[in-house]
Amino acid sequence: MTTSREIHLKSRPAGMPSVDNFEVATVILPDPGPGEVQVRNLWMTVDPYMRAQMYKVSSYHLPFQIGEALQGGAIGEVLVSNDPALKPGDLVQSAFGWREAFNAPAAMARKLDTRGLPPQAFLGVAGMPGMTAYIGLLRIAALKDGDVVFVSAAAGAVGQVVCQIAKLKGHTVIGSAGGPGKIAYLKEIGVDHAIDYKTEANLAAAVLRAAPGGIDVYFDNVGGDHLEAALTAARPLARFALCGMISQYNAPGRGPGTGDLIKVVGKQLRLQGFVQAAHSDMAPAFIADMSKWIAEGKVTWRETIEQGIENAPAAFLKLFTGENIGKMLVKLG
Amino acid sequence: MTTSREIHLKSRPAGMPSVDNFEVATVILPDPGPGEVQVRNLWMTVDPYMRAQMYKVSSYHLPFQIGEALQGGAIGEVLVSNDPALKPGDLVQSAFGWREAFNAPAAMARKLDTRGLPPQAFLGVAGMPGMTAYIGLLRIAALKDGDVVFVSAAAGAVGQVVCQIAKLKGHTVIGSAGGPGKIAYLKEIGVDHAIDYKTEANLAAAVLRAAPGGIDVYFDNVGGDHLEAALTAARPLARFALCGMISQYNAPGRGPGTGDLIKVVGKQLRLQGFVQAAHSDMAPAFIADMSKWIAEGKVTWRETIEQGIENAPAAFLKLFTGENIGKMLVKLG
Repeated sequence: MTTSREIHLKSRPAGMPSVDNFEVATVILPDPGPGEVQVRNLWMTVDPYMRAQMYKVSSYHLPFQIGEALQGGAIGEVLVSNDPALKPGDLVQSAFGWREAFNAPAAMARKLDTRGLPPQAFLGVAGMPGMTAYIGLLRIAALKDGDVVFVSAAAGAVGQVVCQIAKLKGHTVIGSAGGPGKIAYLKEIGVDHAIDYKTEANLAAAVLRAAPGGIDVYFDNVGGDHLEAALTAARPLARFALCGMISQYNAPGRGPGTGDLIKVVGKQLRLQGFVQAAHSDMAPAFIADMSKWIAEGKVTWRETIEQGIENAPAAFLKLFTGENIGKMLVKLG
Repeated sequence: MTTSREIHLKSRPAGMPSVDNFEVATVILPDPGPGEVQVRNLWMTVDPYMRAQMYKVSSYHLPFQIGEALQGGAIGEVLVSNDPALKPGDLVQSAFGWREAFNAPAAMARKLDTRGLPPQAFLGVAGMPGMTAYIGLLRIAALKDGDVVFVSAAAGAVGQVVCQIAKLKGHTVIGSAGGPGKIAYLKEIGVDHAIDYKTEANLAAAVLRAAPGGIDVYFDNVGGDHLEAALTAARPLARFALCGMISQYNAPGRGPGTGDLIKVVGKQLRLQGFVQAAHSDMAPAFIADMSKWIAEGKVTWRETIEQGIENAPAAFLKLFTGENIGKMLVKLG
């Protein structure tokens, strides 16, 4: 018998969420049933996309339910196994984040081969955010020689990988982020032009100063003013990989709207939205490439770590106030 | 020596243009020089895209200059030819619209093979607007079996062709237009669901009533509220061919903005802008297909005709008040 604390959705946020929208519940796990494992989580992830699941109707993924535990990626250690495929001590990856421990069918806890990396890297650079960067740049934006790449939220979990993949492939990279700490990090990872959007009155002008000829690829994690700046700075035939729009997630009803979409016509732009899960066919290539790039020192990463399940809601909220550099993680146990 | 009246840009419109932004000038054409032809125009076209050229800076095409004649497609008859390739009486197509007659190098007046069609069809269904429909549906939206197609400004020069190509290829077509005359026309050409946007408080709801499962393709001629409705009604992986945004052309500075772009991410939509001129490689296929479809009675069209060069500005303005059904043309001479 194991005790686990987990985070429940207490109420649906209207606009910016607060810690009051969440509550900590303590549950007692029975012994795992036949074919099940019991796992103690070591790490869990918080990601901006989870905000969408807090609405009653979610445009992708299933919405979270009031009074139930949230869900998300986690790395844990098997405590008890009733399946021969897993044994106590094995590291596993699952979708049972936001809780300290859980019972589940063994098939829902994938054994993790860390390939010498810290396990939590599989919630970041070597996991969903890293693969999102890879898919967005290589498949959705169809990166090609000579492209000038603009990335928003460039110091975030996805953005930091976008910057580095584009750099190792020889591209000029413009990254936008907020505050001197993030700007310093962007320079450290080789970004050619790091723009602190908090100090720029005219973001499009800043992008065009960095790339007077315009940009060919925009990797959007922000939407709103960043998307408008990219429309202004885009060269004809530029491709936009729309990965997320953190500026829009908390807009109650609808946001202020994106102006200047008419530029999509005249400049013959392609704006394409994508979700990582629909491109799982790229996973083997991603894992092979990313392992090699990390081993060669071509891709590095930052993490921002909060301690303890009780701080998971606060960690999630910090994504929207931009307090993380690199991947935001919660360390459990 | 020939006298010609032509339309000059008198001042740059701010917002919705008025007839005061234009003036009629009379010019005297000298005899054409060596290698030149003199042409009397029979028909000229007015198209919404010309509004963009009335700004000081145009995102595509060159801007019109104050005090100079506007430009655009025209069909004329050769009066005098100093080039063996053309002879008096030949029908020619040129970019020297907005004037009654002109001198030009013979290479700038392309001899027109009407294939039994009325010459002005080459300013409409068999010309730029028809080919725009063809490119947008077949290449940009990549129409495929089973797609449900939504078209805005469906009774306009481009929209009427989009509807009919989609119908002859077996698709369910939802067309939006304003007013009972246009709605009747849409039904006449086989549109499955004709939506009068002027009577619909909630356009997205109207589209979803017509297609409860959502739309797969949106052909945008309008932007703004129509684009937002399409985002709401889109099925996952829908493709949007962005051809024009007539609702935005007169917005001084920037329009009110398009909300809900976040749906592009979750639904994995692809929004692609295009201009017809960049896809001239499709011209032979377009001409072959369109000639056949017209001969088989599968594509028909409407025209709205104004008489005389002095009424060309008024004809142009009527595009923005939606007074045309089908192609808006000016008959000259």
